[in-house]
Amino acid sequence: MNIQIREAKKDDMKYVIELITELAVFEKEPNAVVISSDDLINDGFGNNPLFSCFVALVNNKISGMCLGYPRYSTWKGPTMHLEDLIVTQSMRGKGIGFALFSHFIKFSYLKNVRRIEWAVLDWNVEAINFYKKNGAYVSKEWQIAQMNELAINNFISKNEDI
Amino acid sequence: MNIQIREAKKDDMKYVIELITELAVFEKEPNAVVISSDDLINDGFGNNPLFSCFVALVNNKISGMCLGYPRYSTWKGPTMHLEDLIVTQSMRGKGIGFALFSHFIKFSYLKNVRRIEWAVLDWNVEAINFYKKNGAYVSKEWQIAQMNELAINNFISKNEDI
Repeated sequence: MNIQIREAKKDDMKYVIELITELAVFEKEPNAVVISSDDLINDGFGNNPLFSCFVALVNNKISGMCLGYPRYSTWKGPTMHLEDLIVTQSMRGKGIGFALFSHFIKFSYLKNVRRIEWAVLDWNVEAINFYKKNGAYVSKEWQIAQMNELAINNFISKNEDI
Repeated sequence: MNIQIREAKKDDMKYVIELITELAVFEKEPNAVVISSDDLINDGFGNNPLFSCFVALVNNKISGMCLGYPRYSTWKGPTMHLEDLIVTQSMRGKGIGFALFSHFIKFSYLKNVRRIEWAVLDWNVEAINFYKKNGAYVSKEWQIAQMNELAINNFISKNEDI
């Protein structure tokens, strides 16, 4: 099986949003995706792209994608964040995930970052084992805190003097 | 007590790196900080700054800082990440942390993001309670995976064909 990894183009975003939605369903958040393929085009392909995206092609069909962007550590300096690594369900177990993952690690390595980071759900044991096998450290110590739109708006309303 | 929050300047970075090192000691990683105040100046104050930093002044002395940058969610679009929120030990419990936190939330709110995110250590109960009280959701489901420099280099050596 021939797997080709290449930088994503604007035209790929209609397939990329399908993969994103498929992952949201897998992660038990079917209604979480509020952006569209047009948003991905606007946000990723302008003068200041907010992310880099790569797609995996098998027989010229997009079967997976990865997407990431720079972050900054006050301990290590510039780092990279892998936001998504998705292989469509029917094509899993064929090495596509590894091909995408290695491409992103190489891409980040060439930027000379001292850290590459991402988040994984604790019940996604298969993914965690995959990452560990490839040398990642998976920490249970750090927790992720988030304010969503509602929480942000509530905070602003309650603290009008800031 | 008068707390003033303002955007950090290059000259502040020598105090900011002290706060960063103080936090690393508190987080039981005293040797983790490998960057210098010059790195912070180069990375945060050029044409493409990698972060935004704000400092808290009490009696014209820097007593705390917060630092963050944009991220991207494939569910929500542009988001903001709060990388650090530090108040020097001797000045805690006086509202400086809240002043810095609210400033960053307002700063992010004005960018119209749908999410603000950060990480917190699970044993830092005081911080977790502070965030929850202000409307944040603290998730135990997500784990953070990281490859450090050594892991990245090992991966590249083992997979020379990528």
